[in-house]
Amino acid sequence: MHMTVTVAVAGASGYAGGEFLRLAQGHPHLELGALTAHTQAGLPLGAVHPHIPALAHRTLLATTIDNLAHHDVVVLALPHGASAEIAAQLPATTLVIDLGADHRLTDPHEWEHYYGSSHAGTWPYGMPELIRAHGPAQRQLLGDTRRIAVPGCNVTAVTLATQPFVASPHIDTTALTAVLAVGYSGAGKTLKPHLLAAEALGSAQPYAVGGSHRHIPEIVQNLSIAGAENVAISFTPVLVPMSRGILATVTAPPAPGVTPATDELHAHLTATYAHEPFVDVLPPGVWPSTAATTGANTAYVNVTYDQRANRIVMMCALDNLVKGTAGAAIQSLNIAQGLTEQAGLTTTGVAP
Amino acid sequence: MHMTVTVAVAGASGYAGGEFLRLAQGHPHLELGALTAHTQAGLPLGAVHPHIPALAHRTLLATTIDNLAHHDVVVLALPHGASAEIAAQLPATTLVIDLGADHRLTDPHEWEHYYGSSHAGTWPYGMPELIRAHGPAQRQLLGDTRRIAVPGCNVTAVTLATQPFVASPHIDTTALTAVLAVGYSGAGKTLKPHLLAAEALGSAQPYAVGGSHRHIPEIVQNLSIAGAENVAISFTPVLVPMSRGILATVTAPPAPGVTPATDELHAHLTATYAHEPFVDVLPPGVWPSTAATTGANTAYVNVTYDQRANRIVMMCALDNLVKGTAGAAIQSLNIAQGLTEQAGLTTTGVAP
Amino acid sequence: MHMTVTVAVAGASGYAGGEFLRLAQGHPHLELGALTAHTQAGLPLGAVHPHIPALAHRTLLATTIDNLAHHDVVVLALPHGASAEIAAQLPATTLVIDLGADHRLTDPHEWEHYYGSSHAGTWPYGMPELIRAHGPAQRQLLGDTRRIAVPGCNVTAVTLATQPFVASPHIDTTALTAVLAVGYSGAGKTLKPHLLAAEALGSAQPYAVGGSHRHIPEIVQNLSIAGAENVAISFTPVLVPMSRGILATVTAPPAPGVTPATDELHAHLTATYAHEPFVDVLPPGVWPSTAATTGANTAYVNVTYDQRANRIVMMCALDNLVKGTAGAAIQSLNIAQGLTEQAGLTTTGVAP
Amino acid sequence: MHMTVTVAVAGASGYAGGEFLRLAQGHPHLELGALTAHTQAGLPLGAVHPHIPALAHRTLLATTIDNLAHHDVVVLALPHGASAEIAAQLPATTLVIDLGADHRLTDPHEWEHYYGSSHAGTWPYGMPELIRAHGPAQRQLLGDTRRIAVPGCNVTAVTLATQPFVASPHIDTTALTAVLAVGYSGAGKTLKPHLLAAEALGSAQPYAVGGSHRHIPEIVQNLSIAGAENVAISFTPVLVPMSRGILATVTAPPAPGVTPATDELHAHLTATYAHEPFVDVLPPGVWPSTAATTGANTAYVNVTYDQRANRIVMMCALDNLVKGTAGAAIQSLNIAQGLTEQAGLTTTGVAP
Repeated sequence: MHMTVTVAVAGASGYAGGEFLRLAQGHPHLELGALTAHTQAGLPLGAVHPHIPALAHRTLLATTIDNLAHHDVVVLALPHGASAEIAAQLPATTLVIDLGADHRLTDPHEWEHYYGSSHAGTWPYGMPELIRAHGPAQRQLLGDTRRIAVPGCNVTAVTLATQPFVASPHIDTTALTAVLAVGYSGAGKTLKPHLLAAEALGSAQPYAVGGSHRHIPEIVQNLSIAGAENVAISFTPVLVPMSRGILATVTAPPAPGVTPATDELHAHLTATYAHEPFVDVLPPGVWPSTAATTGANTAYVNVTYDQRANRIVMMCALDNLVKGTAGAAIQSLNIAQGLTEQAGLTTTGVAP
Repeated sequence: MHMTVTVAVAGASGYAGGEFLRLAQGHPHLELGALTAHTQAGLPLGAVHPHIPALAHRTLLATTIDNLAHHDVVVLALPHGASAEIAAQLPATTLVIDLGADHRLTDPHEWEHYYGSSHAGTWPYGMPELIRAHGPAQRQLLGDTRRIAVPGCNVTAVTLATQPFVASPHIDTTALTAVLAVGYSGAGKTLKPHLLAAEALGSAQPYAVGGSHRHIPEIVQNLSIAGAENVAISFTPVLVPMSRGILATVTAPPAPGVTPATDELHAHLTATYAHEPFVDVLPPGVWPSTAATTGANTAYVNVTYDQRANRIVMMCALDNLVKGTAGAAIQSLNIAQGLTEQAGLTTTGVAP
Repeated sequence: MHMTVTVAVAGASGYAGGEFLRLAQGHPHLELGALTAHTQAGLPLGAVHPHIPALAHRTLLATTIDNLAHHDVVVLALPHGASAEIAAQLPATTLVIDLGADHRLTDPHEWEHYYGSSHAGTWPYGMPELIRAHGPAQRQLLGDTRRIAVPGCNVTAVTLATQPFVASPHIDTTALTAVLAVGYSGAGKTLKPHLLAAEALGSAQPYAVGGSHRHIPEIVQNLSIAGAENVAISFTPVLVPMSRGILATVTAPPAPGVTPATDELHAHLTATYAHEPFVDVLPPGVWPSTAATTGANTAYVNVTYDQRANRIVMMCALDNLVKGTAGAAIQSLNIAQGLTEQAGLTTTGVAP
Repeated sequence: MHMTVTVAVAGASGYAGGEFLRLAQGHPHLELGALTAHTQAGLPLGAVHPHIPALAHRTLLATTIDNLAHHDVVVLALPHGASAEIAAQLPATTLVIDLGADHRLTDPHEWEHYYGSSHAGTWPYGMPELIRAHGPAQRQLLGDTRRIAVPGCNVTAVTLATQPFVASPHIDTTALTAVLAVGYSGAGKTLKPHLLAAEALGSAQPYAVGGSHRHIPEIVQNLSIAGAENVAISFTPVLVPMSRGILATVTAPPAPGVTPATDELHAHLTATYAHEPFVDVLPPGVWPSTAATTGANTAYVNVTYDQRANRIVMMCALDNLVKGTAGAAIQSLNIAQGLTEQAGLTTTGVAP
């Protein structure tokens, strides 16, 4: 029996929406229905996403409930704030997957502090690999819901690198630092001067330095779920001249009383992700480059202990649009719909 | 009176040597004499550095003492190990400036641990801005020597960002972290697979992760000179697709007992570098991009305190080949020869 | 019934070989057998192609007949000269696919002039879309052979753009010009100074200017097969800072007596490729970018007539490693093995 | 005697304006007065051009006649249409230099056809190297005017490559083709989707294909002045992922009756530009890369004859913002003000 799941995509004209289309187009069980946009409604999709010729003749519709309803799945790739409003009008039986931030945070104060609007409620979190120190496994939550909040791309990189060492505990989570080299597609398609090619080429540009990035509370939340009592993280993203990719370098001191060894850390990392199809632990001493992840749903991770600095260094590379966004959405969708988790996803990157 | 200083350059075919030529060519008081190379001896310079047409017809000579002697200044842009041997044969009255690592470290054990060869001795350090907690100012040392060891490029970025907060003390130097986005010219012209354009484009590549980078003991040395009692630093360089530039993100917890405030940190940074011609403190909340430093001898710095993470974030952007190498050499040469420190250098970058 | 075809790859460590592995790994009917290399024999594949984690634990074998024999298909991704020698020792019943140049040219004098060695003979040409003015269709030749010569990447771009207008005739093939913006993976993995990232970033580098490029006789051959009586083409490749992609801009005057119109040219182009699964004719006035082709087997083409210049402009964008090399190999393999031509290939690019 | 010339810049916030500031800042005889902008008036210059720290505290003024008047020189870096209006209100004794297109074309019909507005009149053309087959030398015209129209960047590249062969005549100017690899700063700072970094990185994007580019009539005009009777040129610009640089590949058949030889062409090119300080003829067989021109006022040119294609290939590399725009403005200003032509300009590029 061949199962077909119909999917509508709201915000299909942006980078996250476009990446979902790219993956859905190659998925053996998904059938794309309504594709909607805001200012670009009315255009053929070929004018917006020329890399998907199979959909070039589709027309972008307006983002209305009428257009989105009557699909098995609705994917929301919208600015924050917009998702909640639409989701509220969709049937409870429709699987709604939000690529935006609206339903990720559990703490309304955190939401209000970082986003400045009222909290729309929390949905099960679309990171199947999330370690839950207590309660049901994350995959069980995803298998049992009609609402999924897909993680932030930077959050996924930091969480996958760090979470194995939280509950063990190997690391002191109150003194975390993370610096991320990030590609420009992560900044979206909005027209801002610093996102111009002439500004980006030949430059490394930091932003949201000093604790203001909205992905911080989401990281804190994840590591707390993974078993951390207190989490404090210095988080600095740096835009570098590539269209895709995140390389996260996370460091932490050893947990009090722990004398770490790289071998043991590596073995623990390997054991943690032994059954994860989309997390690849590299051999000791081998560090990931983002190019290897391009187009793939793979997150490469590794760890070492720097004895002289007395610091554990954890690294993760992934494609911000795939494992960081649309791939995670497909993976979660597969779980929620009872499909094979790997359906429509690849671990093979397009490199060099 | 117009003063002319004759300069020979050994290793003129590499990136560091080439950058010294670029700057020397525009310097009002320098006259380039012998330009030497190893495998490329015999070639016209135009075949190696086509961006300096004024020198295109010069022929690269062999790197011999005969060729190098009889100049006021000899600049060594050689692989480590090679400088020491040549320097030993040059007259004590010749100003010798080593762009390599041979004479930077004071501690022979550190040298041997990181470089695996015997120590060649220590020369005055070519960073005029280095804060010395004790003894004479760095400029005085440079004004009074015929031997100068130019700092490592990553070291300069980390030192300039961090040193103002060491002796105050604002930061706890035993828990430093530094992640650097670095351009490919910093890796030199050696033919290695990971330096190929096809590998670099679209990728962020970390290397020397976990404490093995040779710039680490040099950073420790500098911050100790600046007044730190103990220094431990987790140091991670990440190659990103740009030809030039370093963006260093350094973090540290506040020093014990200190409750920092961004305003106060910024004021302290501003005061520290108030008279430095080549260190530019950006306004509060403005973070440097490397593009602004291209071709200039400027280091841009800034600082903030992230209260939630309880961490001070210090940032520095510079051009690895200019302020990171050849510009620092010119600046030190100017001091040693009694020229205006800014001669032949610009603070204006070639951007975008 | 599920058909499985076993494939060995000689030269699996290079970019062309690696790209074949990437595609073969996702192909529903191919099973990868021996993967061989020269200097990298003995290494795990993960050390060479980290983007294909599913093959990371495979070991690269030596390139010997013993290792390559006993597969249904042998793919040769070797320097020119090497393929012919190995191919001669493989059974006539094995499908041998040469990604190199050895068996592309029919004219021994052309071969000797451009390659300087003796001619190894000609195999059916792995471009299913090649228009043959006379004799059997190209797909028929490919369906009926055990030896296939895969085209050069630049050749494919120029041929697909130009061939529809040759026999009609719309263009004067004696005054063709082609300038190609090409990514660095097309230059292979050999360590040469001009292929270093520091040289490539921020630069456009022409090479083989003035008629010396080895792809020229291959273009001439193709257009002659497509019906041109005489072909003369000025061909200039320009390396630009991207890892993949070719954008070919081809121009020609109208054929004698022809008064062209863009509409009619576009209609003719559309009709020519109407049934081609991997050639996509863009709407009038829409020009292709290479990013849309990344990882896809798609060639985008378009045409216009510039009345003032009295010149027809034909453009083609493709991924040099896919439609330009390994994708063409898979497509031809599919035909030769009686599989669906599209098996294992996608038209969807990884963009942005 | 030290001569000081005061300069105001209208449109100082854009890339062309910013580049003029960069050069003027280092010019021994220029003193920058009013710097004006439109939407960014009121901002400190440091917020707009962080690469010029010496001007960081200057405030951008509104673009009014009051602000611009009372300077020796006014530079207009404005959208086309705007320059003419302002220039008309400035005193005839003020040297006005227009970086825009308004006053370049002599033929009102050409202007109206390509720009769609009424013609503002023609000013002496700021290309000192322009060959004039008849009448006074271009430098004489520039030495004798208070109004200068600076050429378009692509035009300069094509003209410098081609003009030596026009009057000789070596080439048939009725069958020219030009394909240019161009960096993104040439497209200006306007916020357009295809100029976003995520679109540019990893892609080659053609635009204005088929004869619509506004630089075409300007090329035709220049080559006519250089002695061509008829000019027809197929002109295709391709945006490639670099911030600066133009590499123009121009081809033409030999003029009727001419049997060209590369040696003779090269000698003619060398002789033509023998006394030009900013045009550098590379040795036979050496082709220019754009990186070598970064920040320099140098145009590198070369030529060859491709016998098989029966086509002469002429190439030029330059920095679009320097020799292509602001450097040409400084050079012309120097001539008009009676300063040394090279003042404030360098031939040394910032590479790699």
